[in-house]
Amino acid sequence: MGGDVSSAALLTSRSRDVAARIDHAFDLLLPVPDDARARLYEAMRHAAIGGGKRLRPLLVEATCDLFNIARESALRVGLAVECIHVYSLIHDDLPAMDDDDMRRGKPTVHKAFDEASAILAGDCLHDVAFEILADEQTHADPFVRIDLVRALALASGPAGMAGGQMMDLEAEKSRFDLATVTRLQNLKTGALIAFCVEAAAIMARIPVEARTSLHGYARDIGLAFQIADDLLDVEGDADLAGKALGKDAAAGKETFVSLLGVDRARAQAHMLVDQAKAHLHGYGAEADLLRAIADYIIERDR
Amino acid sequence: MGGDVSSAALLTSRSRDVAARIDHAFDLLLPVPDDARARLYEAMRHAAIGGGKRLRPLLVEATCDLFNIARESALRVGLAVECIHVYSLIHDDLPAMDDDDMRRGKPTVHKAFDEASAILAGDCLHDVAFEILADEQTHADPFVRIDLVRALALASGPAGMAGGQMMDLEAEKSRFDLATVTRLQNLKTGALIAFCVEAAAIMARIPVEARTSLHGYARDIGLAFQIADDLLDVEGDADLAGKALGKDAAAGKETFVSLLGVDRARAQAHMLVDQAKAHLHGYGAEADLLRAIADYIIERDR
Repeated sequence: MGGDVSSAALLTSRSRDVAARIDHAFDLLLPVPDDARARLYEAMRHAAIGGGKRLRPLLVEATCDLFNIARESALRVGLAVECIHVYSLIHDDLPAMDDDDMRRGKPTVHKAFDEASAILAGDCLHDVAFEILADEQTHADPFVRIDLVRALALASGPAGMAGGQMMDLEAEKSRFDLATVTRLQNLKTGALIAFCVEAAAIMARIPVEARTSLHGYARDIGLAFQIADDLLDVEGDADLAGKALGKDAAAGKETFVSLLGVDRARAQAHMLVDQAKAHLHGYGAEADLLRAIADYIIERDR
Repeated sequence: MGGDVSSAALLTSRSRDVAARIDHAFDLLLPVPDDARARLYEAMRHAAIGGGKRLRPLLVEATCDLFNIARESALRVGLAVECIHVYSLIHDDLPAMDDDDMRRGKPTVHKAFDEASAILAGDCLHDVAFEILADEQTHADPFVRIDLVRALALASGPAGMAGGQMMDLEAEKSRFDLATVTRLQNLKTGALIAFCVEAAAIMARIPVEARTSLHGYARDIGLAFQIADDLLDVEGDADLAGKALGKDAAAGKETFVSLLGVDRARAQAHMLVDQAKAHLHGYGAEADLLRAIADYIIERDR
């Protein structure tokens, strides 16, 4: 199982590099103004800077490796996805939603600030994501930019991430079967992960019919990622994870682990990662980072 | 003061027409799915359909009258702005924000559903706005669509509406002066109203330097609108308004009325409306609806 030493080293170095550039970009993007909006910007900075695996921006960059997309374009698209991801964490952590006090080892935004600031900070990062994609600095071609905007709006809205979060809230009230849990997770986490891969294909102007293997890779790692998350929720270390664990079982929610058991869930995740890498057989060393990400997704401890 | 009978009749007929088409468009846009996301869509429909003055879509259409923009494009841009407006009402009404129980004569979304559904319904309408603008049905030219996306993201984000809402929350803690209240309102309500006018200029490809009079019109009616709102908060009828009134004074917030007094605030609003109409002196009958809107803004009772 898993990748070799050089693939792990590649992942570590690229991952650190992306994380540093994303932090720097957020720092430049969100200067605290000298007016009554200061608290809003501080709340956005609290959530956006200095934390997280930055898996989504890394995935954008890894897919851009296949097509020689300009580093600046890849970073800006990764920054936009991370804005959406961070906004969703802020809102999901709210008392009315998952009611979490800790995130990435720090107090959640509504704990460090207040609920109103958290709601607005999330709303603002939501706008900033689209502002970044619409800017010509992201890509010179307006057809590309508008396709990115449309794809991100679909991935984050009711037919994507937010729709999945709604299903997740309903999961506490109903007993979902495996098909429904799979659909929930395809929306809740899969759609945004798929966008990361799709964004590179959009920038490279790959025809839609030639994106099948990339779509397959994204679907498989998205699901593997969620199964790994469910396993961590049962077996993980809350200190390493930087957030509360064991919450799904406490809430009586069905997950891949509750439905399949630990062993079958783990086997399923490994099968999905193998399948994800098989989708990349047409690519050479330029896809090594994508392969390393697939391995990492089920080997991570947080 | 005010417009004549025919201008009022024009406003009434166009306003009803826009409201009916916006309701119909929301109905088609938000079909309730047969899965665990049903409640999310029902919450969006509760907030989006059957209510409101639809001032922003009307303003888009009125400005489009100047440039012979296709009716379908104007409607879709109006629908996108209304998505943002409705999302902001849902979030602003939340207990952690303005804590309102009634809106447009109906229970607010978190009252009719629950807080989590309200947060997510707002988030989803936020995405849907950008999805609408990015779609080629809105406008054939991708340069136009991307400019619309960027302008809307700026108008709704931290440098626009959401930034203004943050200042409004801070207004309960500080004593703002007239300049700060003006800036707050220019962000909170002015930015989105200005987008409505700007959107028509973008679709007509009017050079930025030729938009000065339109920008002046938008700035003046935006401020007049807010002064009228402050006057209604003090003098209005809660049944007609369909929401609670008198909240600003109760919260100890400075408003145009608290700072200027009722008479000077009303005089200021009338001056702004006259000034707004003066910005339209270069246009003929094609600007009559814009003139009627300016008059309506300070004569409305809700």
